[in-house]
Amino acid sequence: MVIFDGKKLADKILIGLKNEIDPWPKKPNLAVVSFGRKEENSSYIIQKRKTAEFLGLGFQHYHYSNEAVSNEREYLNKIAGMEKNSAVVVQLPLAEGINYSILNAIPAEKDPDLLSDKAVGLFFNGRSLVRPPTAAAILMIFDESGIPLRNKRVALFGYGRLVGRFLTPLLIEKGAVVTVLEKNAPREVVLDISSKADIIVSAVGEPGLITADMVKDGAAVVDAGFSIVSGKITGDVDFNSVKDKTSFITPVPGGVGPVGVAELFANVIELFKLSNKKQHR
Amino acid sequence: MVIFDGKKLADKILIGLKNEIDPWPKKPNLAVVSFGRKEENSSYIIQKRKTAEFLGLGFQHYHYSNEAVSNEREYLNKIAGMEKNSAVVVQLPLAEGINYSILNAIPAEKDPDLLSDKAVGLFFNGRSLVRPPTAAAILMIFDESGIPLRNKRVALFGYGRLVGRFLTPLLIEKGAVVTVLEKNAPREVVLDISSKADIIVSAVGEPGLITADMVKDGAAVVDAGFSIVSGKITGDVDFNSVKDKTSFITPVPGGVGPVGVAELFANVIELFKLSNKKQHR
Repeated sequence: MVIFDGKKLADKILIGLKNEIDPWPKKPNLAVVSFGRKEENSSYIIQKRKTAEFLGLGFQHYHYSNEAVSNEREYLNKIAGMEKNSAVVVQLPLAEGINYSILNAIPAEKDPDLLSDKAVGLFFNGRSLVRPPTAAAILMIFDESGIPLRNKRVALFGYGRLVGRFLTPLLIEKGAVVTVLEKNAPREVVLDISSKADIIVSAVGEPGLITADMVKDGAAVVDAGFSIVSGKITGDVDFNSVKDKTSFITPVPGGVGPVGVAELFANVIELFKLSNKKQHR
Repeated sequence: MVIFDGKKLADKILIGLKNEIDPWPKKPNLAVVSFGRKEENSSYIIQKRKTAEFLGLGFQHYHYSNEAVSNEREYLNKIAGMEKNSAVVVQLPLAEGINYSILNAIPAEKDPDLLSDKAVGLFFNGRSLVRPPTAAAILMIFDESGIPLRNKRVALFGYGRLVGRFLTPLLIEKGAVVTVLEKNAPREVVLDISSKADIIVSAVGEPGLITADMVKDGAAVVDAGFSIVSGKITGDVDFNSVKDKTSFITPVPGGVGPVGVAELFANVIELFKLSNKKQHR
């Protein structure tokens, strides 16, 4: 059984990116925007800042407290409109009362997280500029680990905004047979589908959701869940009981997460390259 | 076993729409645009024209032959920009060499078929103005026929632009457990999934794809396939062998098709109402 090392793959991706952009006279600049209480998403933002520093990218964090905010769309328009901000990411989930349509202030050319309607539409119409980072990270993990998808049965737990809904067509495109299971699905159906799956991907955010009885001997299990339990980051998979049944498993932390961050930065750099190409046309 | 009567449900929907709009002084106007050889899609267009006439809507068909065309986007921009055209539909598939991005000339407010990136993005972001007509028709067929979706296993054959990719999230939202099967999936996986499915939906366009051995006794089978074989319209389901195993089946022609057309016109009318509300605000 292989325990996947997400940090190692992420470092490989990031070093490749760093080597690519090091000679560039002008570097991409990532703007991260957050609304609401600052501490809620600070660990994500610290991680992005560190990665930007490693790569030598520009980085700005714009934070608006709940009290200060009533024109989120206007703020976002201004940030997205600044020429130096080549990419804009908004920390999700948005605080209650903020409409997700504000994300449309980010043009697809500056949207490495596929947050706007336009970017999502381009993706589902098969013409996306870049791939959604976490879903792309999961595909890359399969690819780098030599896990084939064609004709494989995949049990996909969760159909959320950032992973499940994007991963479904990407897996189908690779020839996998995908069943989407939400956490309220009947137990006997879940067991029947899951215990026959060659691959289980979970992106629900419910610790302990995936238990050993749900896993076929030799299956590959990818955990894209993220929860905080007693101050500790934890995934959806009951790692200790599940791991011995698998041929391959990704831990949390240190699995999908770091690769997803690396893929986000790969998108930031790809969008910067595309916009320069366009300007030079 | 019930053989669904799509014409009957479509007529019910259309009569309801007609009663609603009859008193309106100003009526919606549907523009249908086709590129390429005219005869290829004329039956679709005749059906839309007839339905528009029944409802008392305005209807225009703009046709551009392949030879005449090099600026499809420009043509479409002009048609979509005309105030009188409250809705614009382009016949798909587009002829070879025409980029699907031309569909972005249609603003979401005039896009009853969800053809543009923007409309597709709004749909997948859960804020669509209207529902994709064929997928909406299939949900309506379940609803009108008293077929529950919650906790049911659905085998969905096909993940195409107009049906499968839209139907997947709509079924998941209703609490169904959905497995997407493409036509090249391994036979033993297809049989295992399909023969346990409470509901089979097929939208592939391959006659004879769904055979009796794939169907559980008492399952509901919805055929959204469309092919022409020896001049006759045919679905994906081997109707004669399958029907006796089912509790419910939709025929082709006369099943999903007419309901889909009715739902398209429901969208044309809904978008017209939304735009008037906006103007009167």
